[in-house]
Amino acid sequence: MAWNFAAGPARLPDAVLLRAREELFTRGDDGACQSERPFSSPPFRSLRQHAGQQLAELLGLPAGYRILFLAGGAMQQFSLLPMNLARPGQPAGYVQTGYWARRAMQEGAVHRPVRALAASDCGMLLDVPNDLAYCHITTNETADGLAWPNLPETGTVPLVADVTSDFLTAPLAVDRFGLLYASAQKNIGVAGLTVVIVREDLLERSPQTLPALFSYRRLAEADSCINTPPMLALQLAAMVFDWIAGQGGLPAMAASNRRKAALVYQAIDASGGFYRTRVAADWRSPVNVCCQLPDTALTERFVVEAETVGLHYLRGHPQIGGIRASLYNAMPAAGASALAAFMGDFARRYG
Amino acid sequence: MAWNFAAGPARLPDAVLLRAREELFTRGDDGACQSERPFSSPPFRSLRQHAGQQLAELLGLPAGYRILFLAGGAMQQFSLLPMNLARPGQPAGYVQTGYWARRAMQEGAVHRPVRALAASDCGMLLDVPNDLAYCHITTNETADGLAWPNLPETGTVPLVADVTSDFLTAPLAVDRFGLLYASAQKNIGVAGLTVVIVREDLLERSPQTLPALFSYRRLAEADSCINTPPMLALQLAAMVFDWIAGQGGLPAMAASNRRKAALVYQAIDASGGFYRTRVAADWRSPVNVCCQLPDTALTERFVVEAETVGLHYLRGHPQIGGIRASLYNAMPAAGASALAAFMGDFARRYG
Repeated sequence: MAWNFAAGPARLPDAVLLRAREELFTRGDDGACQSERPFSSPPFRSLRQHAGQQLAELLGLPAGYRILFLAGGAMQQFSLLPMNLARPGQPAGYVQTGYWARRAMQEGAVHRPVRALAASDCGMLLDVPNDLAYCHITTNETADGLAWPNLPETGTVPLVADVTSDFLTAPLAVDRFGLLYASAQKNIGVAGLTVVIVREDLLERSPQTLPALFSYRRLAEADSCINTPPMLALQLAAMVFDWIAGQGGLPAMAASNRRKAALVYQAIDASGGFYRTRVAADWRSPVNVCCQLPDTALTERFVVEAETVGLHYLRGHPQIGGIRASLYNAMPAAGASALAAFMGDFARRYG
Repeated sequence: MAWNFAAGPARLPDAVLLRAREELFTRGDDGACQSERPFSSPPFRSLRQHAGQQLAELLGLPAGYRILFLAGGAMQQFSLLPMNLARPGQPAGYVQTGYWARRAMQEGAVHRPVRALAASDCGMLLDVPNDLAYCHITTNETADGLAWPNLPETGTVPLVADVTSDFLTAPLAVDRFGLLYASAQKNIGVAGLTVVIVREDLLERSPQTLPALFSYRRLAEADSCINTPPMLALQLAAMVFDWIAGQGGLPAMAASNRRKAALVYQAIDASGGFYRTRVAADWRSPVNVCCQLPDTALTERFVVEAETVGLHYLRGHPQIGGIRASLYNAMPAAGASALAAFMGDFARRYG
């Protein structure tokens, strides 16, 4: 058995792979499969509507929010956020929790003044100036292995979040956000698609002068179809949404993810300091378990030996080092168990 | 038998559909299929390199050009072109041949001054001022059914082209262009991927201040991988490139496309004016055959009756009306024959 612990692109549910093989490239009576049809055709409209409804149901989407299915990755939103939500010269706040929050702030700074905001150990924001266009957080830091224990209060300033790596892994209080975004290749499907959920009143902020494809307002007005959307990626996303619903929805995902992460964190905590995590207990990510080994030679040996027993893509992010196990929705408990057992064995042999 | 004449998303080669079903969602020894792997993994690097090499060979790519595989559609390039290639305030020239050329110019005007350039009946440009950042053409107008008979001379001003709908349908003199771009859903694969081919000296024009994902220079420096590229769409593109190579490359595609288009244009020309095309003979598109019927009621009847005999997605672009048959690489001659026969029959019955 081989297990793929990649942080994203990441494992898809087995049932979705099976369904994809059967359905994606099978033509209908019109001589076309979904990816071969005009995006204005009734079958594709149905697919898009189904994907949106299924996602809204999974999230319990409150009234007054719009779901956008956009081409490309989350990184494009690093630019679209300030272009749409902040006036020229208006500052935006960013909380610097780790690698991806820094990337978001760096790109944000290309467009608007940015302010670094400080968070307390328990995830409270110490000061949110009222003049900020928005306050940006990264709910789960894929590279650093940490997650906000609670959503911070931001008063009248809209909370904006990159939720890429924990989207759909647990229930989410969408009504706490002004906007959230997630690229697909972790828990939604394959790379090339990004989901944006935006509170409708914020759409009015998009300047009239923005290019159509960069304007949340115009993308929402066109129901994400200013041009052909990434149809194949959206079709796969709909299959993933169906799969999550069939598994019991987001509460079931959260319970399963907690159990898997606990197995691996137990292996860390039981290692007597052989595996070390820099993340405070409250901030441990439930989906990206990161830790350091005593030295880089042992880290390298761990990665290589793990591969020989079928545990793949465990190398940490290049900027962070160590090892990282991503345990998103599609990873079965058996994968987490196999990893935890190997970690215990490895620590006994080299600790 | 059902035939799909959609203008894009469009029919994929049968052999590619078969291969996609077998390969795309089958996991390897690492427990992952290509879409589940890190984009930095050796298997995905190999795929990207293979796709680039295969495409370069098909085109006979000259030295000094770079191929970029970007997320999203061609429309995003409508903005990236002026953002990268024109200095603030520097005008760019656009030739207004039809619907898509107008869209490109409209979006270009959001960023820079634009100048409409006039072309002669034989496709010569009457005047290309030296101060233009570039001269933009749409080599094949998908909605209008026309194609440039020859590439225009633009002197020292780089020729930039939207080649979305005729890319890979015939040999292309890449060395005549400063930059060309094509979204994938007509002749490359599925929506969500755009190929950009750029002359290296033009990369130096990208301003330092551009966001990374909007900068051709930075995208080229990162070999299109600033973030995760649309891997599944790229994998399909590689399959299409392999298929074209196996069919005999671009000369074989061109010969086959000419024969298919001739069948349908003959049906138009033999109809005694029942089908009318507004396009001059030299400018007829070899891949999107467009024509008008005597009235909209007959057009509607044509579309509905055609569907009953398995000929689908023949309605013209909403802005143009009439009917349109797209006969890209993946359409077999049998499809064009079936359409031509139906057109003849329909004209006899209603003409």
